[in-house]
Amino acid sequence: MNFADRVCAVVDTQGPLVVGLDPHLSLMPRFLMEKDSGERADTFEKISSAVLDGNRIVLRALRDIAGIVKIQMALYEMLGLPGLSTLVETCREAREMEYLVILDGKRNDISSTARGYATGYLSSVSVFDDLKIPSFWQVDAMTVNPYLGEDGLLPFFDEASRSEKGVFVLCRTSNPSASFVQDEGKGEKLFFKVANLVEELGKPLVGERGLSSAGIVVGATYPADLKDLRKRHPSLLFLVPGIGAQQGDLEALRFAFREDRQGVLVNVSRDILYAYRESGDRYGQDFGEKARIRAREYQDRLLALGRR
Amino acid sequence: MNFADRVCAVVDTQGPLVVGLDPHLSLMPRFLMEKDSGERADTFEKISSAVLDGNRIVLRALRDIAGIVKIQMALYEMLGLPGLSTLVETCREAREMEYLVILDGKRNDISSTARGYATGYLSSVSVFDDLKIPSFWQVDAMTVNPYLGEDGLLPFFDEASRSEKGVFVLCRTSNPSASFVQDEGKGEKLFFKVANLVEELGKPLVGERGLSSAGIVVGATYPADLKDLRKRHPSLLFLVPGIGAQQGDLEALRFAFREDRQGVLVNVSRDILYAYRESGDRYGQDFGEKARIRAREYQDRLLALGRR
Repeated sequence: MNFADRVCAVVDTQGPLVVGLDPHLSLMPRFLMEKDSGERADTFEKISSAVLDGNRIVLRALRDIAGIVKIQMALYEMLGLPGLSTLVETCREAREMEYLVILDGKRNDISSTARGYATGYLSSVSVFDDLKIPSFWQVDAMTVNPYLGEDGLLPFFDEASRSEKGVFVLCRTSNPSASFVQDEGKGEKLFFKVANLVEELGKPLVGERGLSSAGIVVGATYPADLKDLRKRHPSLLFLVPGIGAQQGDLEALRFAFREDRQGVLVNVSRDILYAYRESGDRYGQDFGEKARIRAREYQDRLLALGRR
Repeated sequence: MNFADRVCAVVDTQGPLVVGLDPHLSLMPRFLMEKDSGERADTFEKISSAVLDGNRIVLRALRDIAGIVKIQMALYEMLGLPGLSTLVETCREAREMEYLVILDGKRNDISSTARGYATGYLSSVSVFDDLKIPSFWQVDAMTVNPYLGEDGLLPFFDEASRSEKGVFVLCRTSNPSASFVQDEGKGEKLFFKVANLVEELGKPLVGERGLSSAGIVVGATYPADLKDLRKRHPSLLFLVPGIGAQQGDLEALRFAFREDRQGVLVNVSRDILYAYRESGDRYGQDFGEKARIRAREYQDRLLALGRR
C-alpha cells in the first residue's frame, strides 16, 4: 500500500502523533545510563545499548497509543557505529511491531549521489546488471533537504514511488533562523516555491485518499505559514515538528488539518520521552509509563483538534 | 594546527587536488568485485570489503601525489553498517598515512540536533557532566547544508573551532538545478548571502595564512560565480567539485586561486578512481596505477593554474 495511505490508516485508527525517538544523553533516565552505581554507560557501546533498552521500553509502552515513530539520525550517528547498530535494531523492532518508521536524516546531494542515498534508504541497491540487494535500512520514509533543487530531490521521489515509501522535504523548518534561506525569494518566499515543487514532483505518489507520499516538513512554530501552506496544497502531507520543547502552538495546528482530519503528522520527542523528569526524579524507573501518559495526552489533544 | 593552515601546508607541498573516494559499484574493477569467477561481491559485507580493498590501493598509490581525500558518505551509507565500517576504517587508515580527510555528508539540522552531528563528527560527545568521549569518526572536516540558516550552522563552526577541524558549507553547488534555491533572493542571489554568513561566522576560525577553516562548496560548473565569490571573499577556502565527470571547466578555476596560490581545493572523484576503464579493460588489475597517473596529471594542471 502507498505510504500516504498507510499513514491515513494509522491516523484513522490512532491519530496523527509521531513519537520522536531522540536520545538526548543528558536527559536519559539514570536507571539506563548508570545501571549499577559502579557501571556507568561510559563508552559508545554501553551508551548505545542503554539507548536501545530505552527505545524498546518506549516502543512497548506506546504501541496502542501511537503508530508512527521518527528516528533522529544525528543522535545515533553521534555514537558512531554502535549508535547506528542501535538505530538499525530500533527500526527493525519498531516495524516488527507495525509502527511506521520515519528516518530523519535530512539527506541531500547531487543527482547520482542522491540516487545512492535514495536506493540505499528506500528501495534496493544495484550491484551488478542482474543483482539488486534490498535496502539495509528498514524504514518507511525519510526526510531530505531541498537546497540542491529538483535534480537532488527526484531520485528520492523515484525510489519512494518504486518501493511505496515516503519522503518529506524540508520546507518551513521550526528553528529561529529558518527565515535566513527560506524567506528569500524574488517573488514569494522560497519555501512556497519548495512546496510547489514537492506537489508537482509528488503527483505520481498520490494515493487513494488524495494525499501524496511526498510531503513537506513545516514547523509548528510558524502557524501562519502552516495555514497558508494547507490552503495551497490540499494533497501534501505535513510533518510538523516544533511542538513541546520547541514551544510551537498546538492550537494553531487546527488549520493544518484537512476536512477529512488527515494531512498532518505531529512529531513530539523530548516532551514525551523525558516526561519522567518533571517529577524531579532522575532515576526514571517509570520512564516508559510517564511517556505513555504524556503520549496519550498529546494524541487526545491532536484528535480533538482534527475533529473541529 | 588550525585546519586551514594544515590545508595550506598540503597545497604548498603537493597541490590543491582532493581525491574523492566514491565507490560507484557499476564502475568498480572486476578484480575487486568478482574475485574469482565463482565468488561475486553479492552481499553488503562482501561489497564493503571490496570497497575497502580498493580504497587501500588508491590511498597507497596516491600518497606522494595528493594529500587530501574526500569521502562521499551516501555511497557508504547505501551499503548499510558494513559500508559504514569500511568508511570508518578508510578514514582511520587515511589519517594514519597523514592524508587530511573531508567527510562529505552535507549534514544539517536545527540547533540542538546540529550540535549532535557537530560534536559527533568533529569533537567530543558530552555524556555526563564529568565525561566527554572523543568523536568516533576520525575526520578533519565535514560538509554541511545551510537551508536551516545560522542556528543550524553555528554548532558546526563552534565544534570545528574547538577541535581545529574544518567545515565546508554548501553555497553554489555543481548540479544543473542548483539555481532553484541558490539563485533566489530579494536583492542579490541567495548563495552570496550564504557566503557572507560563512565569512562572518567563520572569522574566529581564520588561521595564520589568512584563510578560515570554515569554507564553502562552489561548483566548477559555475565559473563566473566562482570568480565573483573569490573577489568578495579572500579569506574563504573553496571546496570545488564538478571537475571531470561533471564537465566543469578546469581553466576557469584559475580565478578562484588567491595570489598566494591558496584558497582552492579541487575535488576529482570518478575521473581518477575509474581511469582504468578508459582502456576498455573491466578487470582493472592496474586500477591503482591508472588512478596514480591520472591524479598526477590533475595535480600538475592545478599547480600550473595556481601559478598564473
